[in-house]
Amino acid sequence: MAVLGLGLMGRALAEAFLRAGHPTTVWNRTAAKAEPLAARGATLAATPAEAVAAAPLVVVCVADHASVRAILEPAGGVLGGRTVANLTSGSSGEARRTAAAVSRHGADYLGGAIMAIPETVGTADALLVYSGPRAAFDRHEPVLRSLGAGTSHLGDDHGLASLNEMAVLSVMWNVLNGFLHGAALLGAAGVDAAAFAPLAKTGIETVAGWVPGYARQIDDGAYPVLDAAVDTQLAAMRQVLDESAALGVSTALPAFVKDLAERAVAAGHGGDGYAALVEQFRKPSEGRP
Amino acid sequence: MAVLGLGLMGRALAEAFLRAGHPTTVWNRTAAKAEPLAARGATLAATPAEAVAAAPLVVVCVADHASVRAILEPAGGVLGGRTVANLTSGSSGEARRTAAAVSRHGADYLGGAIMAIPETVGTADALLVYSGPRAAFDRHEPVLRSLGAGTSHLGDDHGLASLNEMAVLSVMWNVLNGFLHGAALLGAAGVDAAAFAPLAKTGIETVAGWVPGYARQIDDGAYPVLDAAVDTQLAAMRQVLDESAALGVSTALPAFVKDLAERAVAAGHGGDGYAALVEQFRKPSEGRP
Ligand SMILES: NC(=O)c1ccc[n+]([C@@H]2O[C@H](COP(=O)([O-])OP(=O)(O)OC[C@H]3O[C@@H](n4cnc5c(N)ncnc54)[C@H](OP(=O)(O)O)[C@@H]3O)[C@@H](O)[C@H]2O)c1
Ligand SMILES: NC(=O)c1ccc[n+]([C@@H]2O[C@H](COP(=O)([O-])OP(=O)(O)OC[C@H]3O[C@@H](n4cnc5c(N)ncnc54)[C@H](OP(=O)(O)O)[C@@H]3O)[C@@H](O)[C@H]2O)c1
Repeated sequence: MAVLGLGLMGRALAEAFLRAGHPTTVWNRTAAKAEPLAARGATLAATPAEAVAAAPLVVVCVADHASVRAILEPAGGVLGGRTVANLTSGSSGEARRTAAAVSRHGADYLGGAIMAIPETVGTADALLVYSGPRAAFDRHEPVLRSLGAGTSHLGDDHGLASLNEMAVLSVMWNVLNGFLHGAALLGAAGVDAAAFAPLAKTGIETVAGWVPGYARQIDDGAYPVLDAAVDTQLAAMRQVLDESAALGVSTALPAFVKDLAERAVAAGHGGDGYAALVEQFRKPSEGRP
Repeated sequence: MAVLGLGLMGRALAEAFLRAGHPTTVWNRTAAKAEPLAARGATLAATPAEAVAAAPLVVVCVADHASVRAILEPAGGVLGGRTVANLTSGSSGEARRTAAAVSRHGADYLGGAIMAIPETVGTADALLVYSGPRAAFDRHEPVLRSLGAGTSHLGDDHGLASLNEMAVLSVMWNVLNGFLHGAALLGAAGVDAAAFAPLAKTGIETVAGWVPGYARQIDDGAYPVLDAAVDTQLAAMRQVLDESAALGVSTALPAFVKDLAERAVAAGHGGDGYAALVEQFRKPSEGRP
């Protein structure tokens, strides 16, 4: 394998390959970061082209897609017949642009996304998803699996892995924002975040358990009440807003939550379950392309 | 026990008491809802006062606190010496008002919150929290525990259980909103919510695992990077916003997420971990009391 980019994540990827016993050639713009890996058995390459020439599978993980394209362009002459697995975050549009640039040089492109932190890369806990030509994935799957036990192929569209990453990241920030708002609210009343954490964790895990059921409703386009109706929840949302205002913390998030539910009620979903709110998220925002 | 209010939740509470073998008297404004419980061994009361007079512990679970006060007021003459455990949702201010009304009649007041859905009430999965006089909680704990194995006392403040409920509900809506936005985003690209659900669930559970560590940082007021710096995450937030706009779904939620992180960066937290954003949530919103 070749690994291009040895930041926090790239280093973790290279180490996982080495631990699994795969010969690994590495390159990083700032060469000093490659040295600790040489001590573990990696071969150092002086240029991206030299690294690419050394391996049939080239894993790239740098700051953004523009950097990926800039790194691979001068290696174009040696890309032919190889597979590039790009684990750099980006939108699906960026992924398709990078795929086109790579394909022009006769290489297969797998878009990838790492749903894990560097610490868990190479373990049973790491989830990595790929999209692009199935045959290329199948060919390299045994090696890719050494980056994480949860390794899967989502489909042929080069942008699909990136799109899923965008959606999952978005979910994760919203979970965190909910927790941070709750911690701010309780903090204003003198309650430690540590005291709130177990309840918040239970609440989050409870919702995680609901996700498959909500997903079915979304796909069916029918939202029977599973826990409480939107009308009932809206009443509680107003209480959360009042509580936030009374304690003098930001009301921006509870106001967002309430406004959304109000729009769903106005659209006739007051008696439905919460999944009905997906229709509000489907609407393009005004004043945007 | 007495149970006042036999909606979706009140019925589940009464059934859990009956399953545990506790003599239970029930009342509901719409009397017809009480009948199925009589068949399971409950005693029907014609008025709230009749129900209150029958039991040392009175559990109330109706639509809102104003209804709780309206129900209990005419039962004032028989409240003395009893304990009212109010499991109705509301803000901490509402809980304190109800506590004052109940205390005037010489009863102990326990504010409560059910962090569970009706189906799981009475099982190991149900979490119920209480606040108010510790002695009253201790006296009734064995009986209250039949409503859920996760039964705990948070402190003496009558409003504390309600405050925690508000915060947990708020977290749960935000988790759901994140999932619904993600489902809308993938849906616009032709991906089923069911295909997204396992990834979203993993993302949510991953963040649940981070909560105790983030809580420690919040209490310490120091936010070293645990996964990725706010600056790095902000770049990905902009990608999510672009992706949402490109696919024609609502950009409201990703814009909210990005704006918040931008404010944290402007406040000097670009190199910190995500928990630093708690400071943005602590700020009172403009134009609000
Ligand atoms: N960290 C995580 O938890 C995590 C999780 C999932 C996904 N990811 C994704 O993984 C990717 C890398 O993240 P990271 O945490 O490793 O970031 P990082 O520690 O900041 O490393 C960035 C890497 O990109 C390289 N780079 C930046 N601009 C470059 C350019 N123009 N030309 C060549 N190389 C360039 C850097 O090289 P220098 O050393 O020379 O600066 C460094 O190797 C990102 O897309 C990130 O979203 C990270
Ligand atoms: N369902 C859940 O998953 C859940 C979870 C946690 C907490 N909670 C909380 O539990 C409480 C009850 O919820 P629920 O799901 O049981 O709601 P529900 O099914 O709508 O039942 C509402 C109950 O309140 C009674 N009520 C409403 N206004 C009244 C008034 N003015 N006077 C007397 N009784 C009145 C209703 O009596 P009638 O039958 O006569 O209308 C009914 O018994 C709420 O605070 C809710 O937030 C519910």
